[in-house]
Amino acid sequence: MRFYDISMTIEPSMTVYKNKDSKRPHFLQSASFDQQGVYETDLHVNLHTGTHVDFPLHTIPGGSTSSQERLEDFYGACKVFDFTHLVDHISRDDLEKVAIEKGDFILFKTRNSFVEPFDFDFVYLDKTGAEYLKEKAIRGVGIDTLGIERSQANHPTHDLLLGNGIYILEGLRLALVESGEYTLVALPLKIKDVEASLVRAILIEKE
Amino acid sequence: MRFYDISMTIEPSMTVYKNKDSKRPHFLQSASFDQQGVYETDLHVNLHTGTHVDFPLHTIPGGSTSSQERLEDFYGACKVFDFTHLVDHISRDDLEKVAIEKGDFILFKTRNSFVEPFDFDFVYLDKTGAEYLKEKAIRGVGIDTLGIERSQANHPTHDLLLGNGIYILEGLRLALVESGEYTLVALPLKIKDVEASLVRAILIEKE
Repeated sequence: MRFYDISMTIEPSMTVYKNKDSKRPHFLQSASFDQQGVYETDLHVNLHTGTHVDFPLHTIPGGSTSSQERLEDFYGACKVFDFTHLVDHISRDDLEKVAIEKGDFILFKTRNSFVEPFDFDFVYLDKTGAEYLKEKAIRGVGIDTLGIERSQANHPTHDLLLGNGIYILEGLRLALVESGEYTLVALPLKIKDVEASLVRAILIEKE
Repeated sequence: MRFYDISMTIEPSMTVYKNKDSKRPHFLQSASFDQQGVYETDLHVNLHTGTHVDFPLHTIPGGSTSSQERLEDFYGACKVFDFTHLVDHISRDDLEKVAIEKGDFILFKTRNSFVEPFDFDFVYLDKTGAEYLKEKAIRGVGIDTLGIERSQANHPTHDLLLGNGIYILEGLRLALVESGEYTLVALPLKIKDVEASLVRAILIEKE
């Protein structure tokens, strides 16, 4: 069984959305060998840090949260599509050229996977692409940077996906993964009633 | 495929170790629809909150950390043993009665799984039991409360396990799980160089 770890590492110097300081995780040593006889760490983290899932409440007032997740949706067959030839965004035209079916969990491998510092011009999924995925009724979509859209007023890509029961995985690292079919394991950390959750995501090669 | 979610829910009112306020997670709304057009949450959390894994640095100065984890060890065959008849602790004598083999990941289902508030007299693994697991060279052990030992000076159970490459999963919920063999999926959140990590853990029934 071959594993691909497609998660970002949470650490103080990691890449954060738009390089905002408010998005940076903070670590605090909360117990020491000298004082408590053990070593412990506290973490202060925005739930959209590194590899994470967005739930509807992120962009839709009154939207559903982590507490309504379908855990089975984050474990199962998955298709990775190679869109590394695209420079700016993924649209309906690009998606029509690949085999997307109802219930799929799909991941976009783009040039984002080869960029380490935050790229303000990252490749994103545009509104026409999100409409297509809604029509296809997929179960989830993932992208290899910290956002799935940029420069679209009122975040229609998020709303079209989240408003139609399609989960969004952001912050994947796919540089070492070829296009093809895998098993995705991306169980969200179990946090009550929040709009996003941190995820350790892996792909397992099909046997 | 049948899933058992064996994770605790992270929330402000959750059970924390010895009911200490310093161990309690805190939530902060860090973006709102009115101001940023989206909803976001920050979480401040001790890494030993809810379902988590301990790495050697937790009790062993200079011990290895999350950065040296063997990810494959947190995905695979697992045995759940029913020790609900024990009142105080699990010892070598108890473990000799069940089938434990080299490389196993084993979980202890005890009366802890049926107690919700923190129980200062929780069932734990004593030093003789930890010595036995070291001799057996298992790969990991999990328990259904927030600690794997109590009232043992200098935490010998932790040191015997962590000092010999045996991972410890704490904070499991096993009330609904029967003894038997499963696939365990308990991938730690990917955090750099820490002594513990948060985990979403599930068991999958064997087909």
